[in-house]
Amino acid sequence: MADRIWTAALVVIGDEILSGRTQDRNVAQVAAWLNVQGIRLAEVRVVADREAAIVEAVNGLRARNDYLFTTGGIGPTHDDITVDAVAAALGVGVVHHPEAMAVLTEYYATRGGLTEARARMARVPEGAGLIVNRVSGAPGIRIGNIFIMAGVPHITAGMLDSLTGTLEGGRPVVSRTIGGWIAESEVADLLRDAEKRFRDRGEIAIGSYPFFREGRVGANLVVRGPDAALVADCVADLAAALRAAGHETVDGGI
Amino acid sequence: MADRIWTAALVVIGDEILSGRTQDRNVAQVAAWLNVQGIRLAEVRVVADREAAIVEAVNGLRARNDYLFTTGGIGPTHDDITVDAVAAALGVGVVHHPEAMAVLTEYYATRGGLTEARARMARVPEGAGLIVNRVSGAPGIRIGNIFIMAGVPHITAGMLDSLTGTLEGGRPVVSRTIGGWIAESEVADLLRDAEKRFRDRGEIAIGSYPFFREGRVGANLVVRGPDAALVADCVADLAAALRAAGHETVDGGI
Repeated sequence: MADRIWTAALVVIGDEILSGRTQDRNVAQVAAWLNVQGIRLAEVRVVADREAAIVEAVNGLRARNDYLFTTGGIGPTHDDITVDAVAAALGVGVVHHPEAMAVLTEYYATRGGLTEARARMARVPEGAGLIVNRVSGAPGIRIGNIFIMAGVPHITAGMLDSLTGTLEGGRPVVSRTIGGWIAESEVADLLRDAEKRFRDRGEIAIGSYPFFREGRVGANLVVRGPDAALVADCVADLAAALRAAGHETVDGGI
Repeated sequence: MADRIWTAALVVIGDEILSGRTQDRNVAQVAAWLNVQGIRLAEVRVVADREAAIVEAVNGLRARNDYLFTTGGIGPTHDDITVDAVAAALGVGVVHHPEAMAVLTEYYATRGGLTEARARMARVPEGAGLIVNRVSGAPGIRIGNIFIMAGVPHITAGMLDSLTGTLEGGRPVVSRTIGGWIAESEVADLLRDAEKRFRDRGEIAIGSYPFFREGRVGANLVVRGPDAALVADCVADLAAALRAAGHETVDGGI
């Protein structure tokens, strides 16, 4: 029986990513976390701090994925418009969440008090729940299948941590890598044939990632799929085919 | 007179990014390069190595931006399907480009010869031209407003380099940063007011990027716009307003 595949999309919100000022780290960390939950990151969009752009991305992706995550734009300043944009996308109002107000009141009690700007971080789309933030006070937000998270990577990580194990998923995709000092163009046919041999036996994908290092070309070959035994079979088959063609491989990659 | 704003979109193609295996570097480098050309990176999508996903992204973005860039999926192996997907998006066939064949024949003359797999890298959507690759032989591809580039960041960089100065753009966005050991929630109103004061004078945006370092919170405030004099005015205004509120700032950011 084929497993149901659970998918998620991620909307990264922020002019700082699109301007090149800031190197995004959330795509990789959300992807890796989702995989452990048995959920595939199916697509990502990076959009500007503009309501129309956020609304389009949220509405384009939330219906066709099991889960939608956003990162960025939930701070206290004027350029933080994610909550308003998600509310607009859903056609609901924005309210101050009482529990978030309590969290922020306590957090800022010893930090100068809860100002109006800080209370902005308690605003949520009507009907939303909270995602615990153990790092910096202001919580993330959950509404329906949408998870609104901070943009600062270590705060995002804390929010993901508090969601661990709470989302339904399927079998995690396992991946195994073998590497070799091989020009990938020399083994292209061999890779295609290996993937074909396994295609009927279950979901399997072979990726080829070339590199140039120490003056030599090489490639890491990554076999991915939800069935660990099938992935192991495919890796063994691939290593044998490469060996027969005169290529040594290194388990775990180079 | 308001300048015309030139925009670009980027489609990052690759399972390795969505699986979390590989940290993308191309969004930041393409963004920074575009900015020097006077072109804004308006939106980014990361999609899997699946033709339907690439076609949707390419067709969704190419019409509403002046330029569309793709990175990834143009190597010699079975998982490299970008050329076929872009051709499908445009409704044209795929041909071997004679000049690309010549480039690859020469490149592989001393590297074991041009095999069928390697000749795959000469395939282009019908009607396309080439983007010079000074790093590793196989060229990038240009068709209409679409620029198909390699996924390996240093090869992408070489392709961008060969496009430098060849694309029409507007005035580059300049940005200036001032930083302070300031909780951004304390200065949110002040930032909003500063942006309002300048909004009517031309395109200007103030971004606030909080951080936590050496046990203290701080924020870098980034003023962006195409008019360098206006950006400088806004930075001076902002620094004065912060000083009046008791906050020291550091030019260039912290």
